[in-house]
Amino acid sequence: MSGGGALIVLPAIAGLFFAFWLFTKKLKPISLGSEIGRSASDYSQSTSRNGSASSLSAMEHTGEDSLMRGMESGDRAAMEETLAKVRRIHHDVRDGARAFLNAEYRMCVAFLAAFGVAIAVLTSNGRLGFDAKSGFATAAAFAVGGVTSMASGYVGMMVATYTNARCAMMATLKPEHLAWKESFNAAFRGGGVMGFALSGLGLLMMYFLMLVYSAFFSFETHAMELFECIAGFGLGGSAIAMFGRVGGGIYTKAADVGADLAGKVVAGIPEDDPRNPATIADNVGDNVGDVAGMGSDLFGSFAEATCAALVIGAQSADLVAAGWDSIIFPLYISAVGILVCIGVSFVATDISPVRNEISIERVLKTQLTLSTIAMTICIYPICYVFMPQDLYLGSSSFSTACLGTTSSRCISNGPRSAFACIAAGLWGGLIIGFVTEYYTSHSYAPVREVARSTETGAATNIIYGLALGYKSTIVPVTVLAFGVWLSFSLMDMYGVALCALGMLGTLSTCLAIDVYGPICDNAGGIAEMAGMPDDVRDKTDALDAAGNTTAAIGKGFAIGSAALVSLALTAAFVTRTGALENGVNLLNPSVFAFLLIGSMLPYWFSAMTMKSVGVAAMEMVKEVKRQFDTIPGLLEGTPGHAPPDHARCIKISTDASLREMVPPATLVIMAPIITGTFFGVKAVTGLLAGGLASGVQLAISASNTGGAWDNAKKYVEKGGLYIDVPKRERAHSDPVEGPYTGAIVRNVDGSPQLISVRQRKGSDCHKAAVVGDTVGDPLKDTSGPAVNILMKLTAIISLVFADFFMSINDGRGLFLVGN
Amino acid sequence: MSGGGALIVLPAIAGLFFAFWLFTKKLKPISLGSEIGRSASDYSQSTSRNGSASSLSAMEHTGEDSLMRGMESGDRAAMEETLAKVRRIHHDVRDGARAFLNAEYRMCVAFLAAFGVAIAVLTSNGRLGFDAKSGFATAAAFAVGGVTSMASGYVGMMVATYTNARCAMMATLKPEHLAWKESFNAAFRGGGVMGFALSGLGLLMMYFLMLVYSAFFSFETHAMELFECIAGFGLGGSAIAMFGRVGGGIYTKAADVGADLAGKVVAGIPEDDPRNPATIADNVGDNVGDVAGMGSDLFGSFAEATCAALVIGAQSADLVAAGWDSIIFPLYISAVGILVCIGVSFVATDISPVRNEISIERVLKTQLTLSTIAMTICIYPICYVFMPQDLYLGSSSFSTACLGTTSSRCISNGPRSAFACIAAGLWGGLIIGFVTEYYTSHSYAPVREVARSTETGAATNIIYGLALGYKSTIVPVTVLAFGVWLSFSLMDMYGVALCALGMLGTLSTCLAIDVYGPICDNAGGIAEMAGMPDDVRDKTDALDAAGNTTAAIGKGFAIGSAALVSLALTAAFVTRTGALENGVNLLNPSVFAFLLIGSMLPYWFSAMTMKSVGVAAMEMVKEVKRQFDTIPGLLEGTPGHAPPDHARCIKISTDASLREMVPPATLVIMAPIITGTFFGVKAVTGLLAGGLASGVQLAISASNTGGAWDNAKKYVEKGGLYIDVPKRERAHSDPVEGPYTGAIVRNVDGSPQLISVRQRKGSDCHKAAVVGDTVGDPLKDTSGPAVNILMKLTAIISLVFADFFMSINDGRGLFLVGN
Repeated sequence: MSGGGALIVLPAIAGLFFAFWLFTKKLKPISLGSEIGRSASDYSQSTSRNGSASSLSAMEHTGEDSLMRGMESGDRAAMEETLAKVRRIHHDVRDGARAFLNAEYRMCVAFLAAFGVAIAVLTSNGRLGFDAKSGFATAAAFAVGGVTSMASGYVGMMVATYTNARCAMMATLKPEHLAWKESFNAAFRGGGVMGFALSGLGLLMMYFLMLVYSAFFSFETHAMELFECIAGFGLGGSAIAMFGRVGGGIYTKAADVGADLAGKVVAGIPEDDPRNPATIADNVGDNVGDVAGMGSDLFGSFAEATCAALVIGAQSADLVAAGWDSIIFPLYISAVGILVCIGVSFVATDISPVRNEISIERVLKTQLTLSTIAMTICIYPICYVFMPQDLYLGSSSFSTACLGTTSSRCISNGPRSAFACIAAGLWGGLIIGFVTEYYTSHSYAPVREVARSTETGAATNIIYGLALGYKSTIVPVTVLAFGVWLSFSLMDMYGVALCALGMLGTLSTCLAIDVYGPICDNAGGIAEMAGMPDDVRDKTDALDAAGNTTAAIGKGFAIGSAALVSLALTAAFVTRTGALENGVNLLNPSVFAFLLIGSMLPYWFSAMTMKSVGVAAMEMVKEVKRQFDTIPGLLEGTPGHAPPDHARCIKISTDASLREMVPPATLVIMAPIITGTFFGVKAVTGLLAGGLASGVQLAISASNTGGAWDNAKKYVEKGGLYIDVPKRERAHSDPVEGPYTGAIVRNVDGSPQLISVRQRKGSDCHKAAVVGDTVGDPLKDTSGPAVNILMKLTAIISLVFADFFMSINDGRGLFLVGN
Repeated sequence: MSGGGALIVLPAIAGLFFAFWLFTKKLKPISLGSEIGRSASDYSQSTSRNGSASSLSAMEHTGEDSLMRGMESGDRAAMEETLAKVRRIHHDVRDGARAFLNAEYRMCVAFLAAFGVAIAVLTSNGRLGFDAKSGFATAAAFAVGGVTSMASGYVGMMVATYTNARCAMMATLKPEHLAWKESFNAAFRGGGVMGFALSGLGLLMMYFLMLVYSAFFSFETHAMELFECIAGFGLGGSAIAMFGRVGGGIYTKAADVGADLAGKVVAGIPEDDPRNPATIADNVGDNVGDVAGMGSDLFGSFAEATCAALVIGAQSADLVAAGWDSIIFPLYISAVGILVCIGVSFVATDISPVRNEISIERVLKTQLTLSTIAMTICIYPICYVFMPQDLYLGSSSFSTACLGTTSSRCISNGPRSAFACIAAGLWGGLIIGFVTEYYTSHSYAPVREVARSTETGAATNIIYGLALGYKSTIVPVTVLAFGVWLSFSLMDMYGVALCALGMLGTLSTCLAIDVYGPICDNAGGIAEMAGMPDDVRDKTDALDAAGNTTAAIGKGFAIGSAALVSLALTAAFVTRTGALENGVNLLNPSVFAFLLIGSMLPYWFSAMTMKSVGVAAMEMVKEVKRQFDTIPGLLEGTPGHAPPDHARCIKISTDASLREMVPPATLVIMAPIITGTFFGVKAVTGLLAGGLASGVQLAISASNTGGAWDNAKKYVEKGGLYIDVPKRERAHSDPVEGPYTGAIVRNVDGSPQLISVRQRKGSDCHKAAVVGDTVGDPLKDTSGPAVNILMKLTAIISLVFADFFMSINDGRGLFLVGN
């Protein structure tokens, strides 16, 4: 095709190679002590090539060696036992995750096959009569997209479950700062493997698909057909994301809520207590939802944004005339992104690594900011090399169509406009990320206020949390609206697609940061269950608290990009159904009626998913109760009692999630198809716009509310909340242990006086905070993120089926409504 | 003008007269026993003309006479004391309500004056240059609308606080069925006074305003100017509704949540305990929010729907040519509605009255259904008399504009189309009402499921409740979408306005039913606080439970009609800004960006109002705590202790609500003005559509979630919830008293076995249910209903300022964006 292809293939391969390198050279050498004596030297040897001088000497103390020193007794047998526990839990989680993915992927393959046939048949029957070639090509692209997404998810899950125990192990290192650095690095690199593997694989598959298809559809003459078939790739990615997000979301929260409730309601034990049979399912769930689910979600966004840009671009005669390199410009953005993220990743792990608790959030935020800055700089020349100066986004050429008009489809400075759109996406994403952090981290006022509201009980905690979530939509939505307005004004619908790709430009970094969260969460769980020393658990807890915030940031990115992608796809759909040449009149009976229906869909969908979590969690509680009732000695913790039956709990979560995901999936897939078939393309446009406008608010508020409650609880647990503090100085405080710690001050005359009560685990405030946390679980990890999928999937389905809809009464639907 | 005017003036006066009659002849005769010996005979005398033979003889035992017999001792002194308490509480509530209204209305008057000046200035400066006459006329109409709304609200509040104690008194009658009937009738008639006074007054004022203004603007030549000025009336009504709903909503829930929390957290006493200083404020709040707030909300809907229909109708040359009677057709709908509702009201009070607990809901539902049926029948001839056969909704005539076209603005069968639109509104409202009842009454599965979820604690209760609210949007939104689609298809934007008026056709009945709720709620509070006998409180509780459901139904109507009104106003705005002749392209940078912003507004607004309730409730809790700490003997209930300082609590609620309502009110008023001024009319259209689409979902889900939690709590309290019931028969149950009632059955061998535990007040399930109830309070009574106002007020402001927006760069705004 052209030499420019190398600029796509090489970065993609670089991403894959970097992921492989991270895994084999950085993660694999960390021993879990199963072959004693081998690991420490191996690790120091393998890292010596990269480690700095200071870390090299400290590296000697890895694995069981340092763990031993971390334990007070230094008892070799006790250490062996702890290590054996770590390995066992690690294997349980890995096997559980694998079992779930196998079950889910069986369902996915069946779905891909069935829906692939439907696509082949329906998209063959287009406006221009029967055309089996494009139907088959679309279906094949759909299958490739689906399989790529599944492969990425699988790799991510395996690496995450591989890394969790290793992160916990590195937290045992001495001295302190090395433990902070290496445990952080392990988790971050585990995330990196996922991030780079996914970006690289996605880009590579997409490019090869384009190369293969361009042999059948010449892009000079059949660019539209070519990229419409390629759009199947996006649909495949998004369909798998549907299963990952909805199924995974239900799985993780059924296990989490179930474990919490069972621990509290049934047995009165902490949620990570090894006696609780649901804990392994809970740990598996973190990986299922936040790794595989989030990965497939962002993969879907990437694939769909690229498809939308390609489909819209293909309609521009000028862009086609500018050649293959200009047409595939959207792919260059992602390619550059991979290289930038590789470069920046060394800042976090080596150049300016984590040294203590406070630096974790700083390092993560620096990573995100640097990626954005570097990406902004690198994308600038790319725009100038590959974007034509003047272009018209329609089927005429710029010189004839744009004479004397001011249409936004006439772009008179292509490179500058493209750069502005991409930059708007990049920086919009960053702002959304930081605002999300502000609303969900307990370092700032909003979460602290929610924590304080627990003073008057669970009800005020819920009221304040809901209000926080609602309020947190203001800035992100304004940023998104500005991005839409700017890119739309500059480059019409093509600009919106570029804006979405810009927001996804730092995809690898975002994914690395996002996957980091569940790895740390798991590491904390393993440390707790294996009975590792307190200082190790303090470290994993601190890493995990940062992970909660990064998870929220990741969700912010995912929602923001999903909204832009959805709009770009809607725009591509409207462009595709040429019947709407004068635009879509908002004040048309069908459009407005379906705008209302579309706005309702996210609510319907959320109702289903939240209810599913409730139902599945209840099942889990019953099972845990059954095990405590029937396994002798389990609840009492009698030495030598039979182990809890983790597998059964995992099976309950797996079965429930696969069963419960069918109705919401059906709703999302059928809504646009039924609307388009019976009510026509105008109704579909209304449906998509409504779903997008209402969904983005619901998604942002749900995930931020949940994140805030979670961290409000953590804030109370770490003793941040004092109640009843009169305005006297707090000096000379004299803490007392227990759920309530009294901060006692001396009065001027020296007499002691209790002036404030610090709330901790087990206090009334903490109990109220736990209620919020539990309510937030399904909101932030099931309903909220799943709404992303709703926005995107309905849009890409509409796009893929656009020709089919147009074939029914010229796009007016079977009912022939609208005007 | 024409003889048809009588058909408006006479029904309006009939409504006012009927309200007056209900008050003087039915409510006033009920004595509170302050002049002993007078009341019983007075009441029997005054009702003898209407009472049936059987009730006549029983009527002898009214007031203090029957109360005495209801009390076990028959002690005259104790009875006197109870009656004195009733009167004192009654007066406290009345004075508190009056104090709040006075404070609120002072603020309203200041606002009306200030904003009136702004309107006079800004609307004078229209497209056609400076035109002081229309500016002044609009401002005057605005003032009249505002004052009318205030007057209606005041009347309603005074009657509701007049009736509450009387409803409680009638519940003491013997025999039982008479107590049921008369206490229900008192509350229902109290609601009727409000309903008919408001409908009559609103219609009358509007018609006279039209008569006066038509002397200045001839309707044959200046119909547009005439009705644009009249639109100020709608704006005035809606602006007062803003204060009523937001201020009232914050007031009522600050008091309610504050009283609940203070009772539980501070003192451990029930919420209606007379020792709790916040109880009077709580009872005042019910009237402030649900009577004055709901009344002004629905008055606003009526006024705005009428204005929208008039403005749109005025643009049709055909309709103007058909004459004054056809132009003012929208007013006939409301006029007929008043007559129909008067007729039907006798069914509930006399023909088929309430006889026991079960019949309450039946009677209320019958009332609603009969009104709808009768209205459907009566409106049919009106359509045929006043609607022209053929008309075009634009400035041409049907015969020239509609030749060979299929535009929805060409109406070839005016009467039939108008009837279909109105009927769609009427029946849509009824369906929404019944669906709301299904989701919020504990007679059906959804609320019972929420109640059952308390088994695993407050968190699952919240999760299930939120899911219920989300799910409850499905049918109402679908019904609304269908109504929009049908009426829009049949009669373009005019049809949507008629559909809204149809939904408001049974306004008087809806209001009567709605106001019935807070009256019963107050009656229950008075019965509790005055220490009336248990069987009296059982009756008021049952009436109140039905009131919860009717309140939800009322909210369903209010939201549904608000959505339709908002759409009609948006349509009128678009019609008015002639620049948008080709419709509003959804895929335009400004439109879509502001669609997102508009969808975010309800969330921002809800965040503010919910937070305000939280803040104000906290203040209330602190005040209650202070009183318990400083008033000796109050908490312990020592005989002869100083009374709690109710006035201070009322003042806290009043001050908080007036202070906290400023930011949300500013948001709603400024959002469309800023958008229109800076970004132009296209952006405003996007803003309105987004606010409507997202707001309707949020409003429905919030108010149904809250209603469901409230009734789930009531379900637990009345002992509906059994936990752990194996599948064995429940015969031979042997109840035990206490928070948990065990239902003990005999096994086959005769041995007793505990098979189920009935949950009651004080059980863990009840505590979890109370958390849901408290969270639901601001959702259902503050945020949810206030979103109605947001939808309508932004739209009517845009309409009134349409000319001003168009005067800025020809409607493109100061920033000159969009294309």
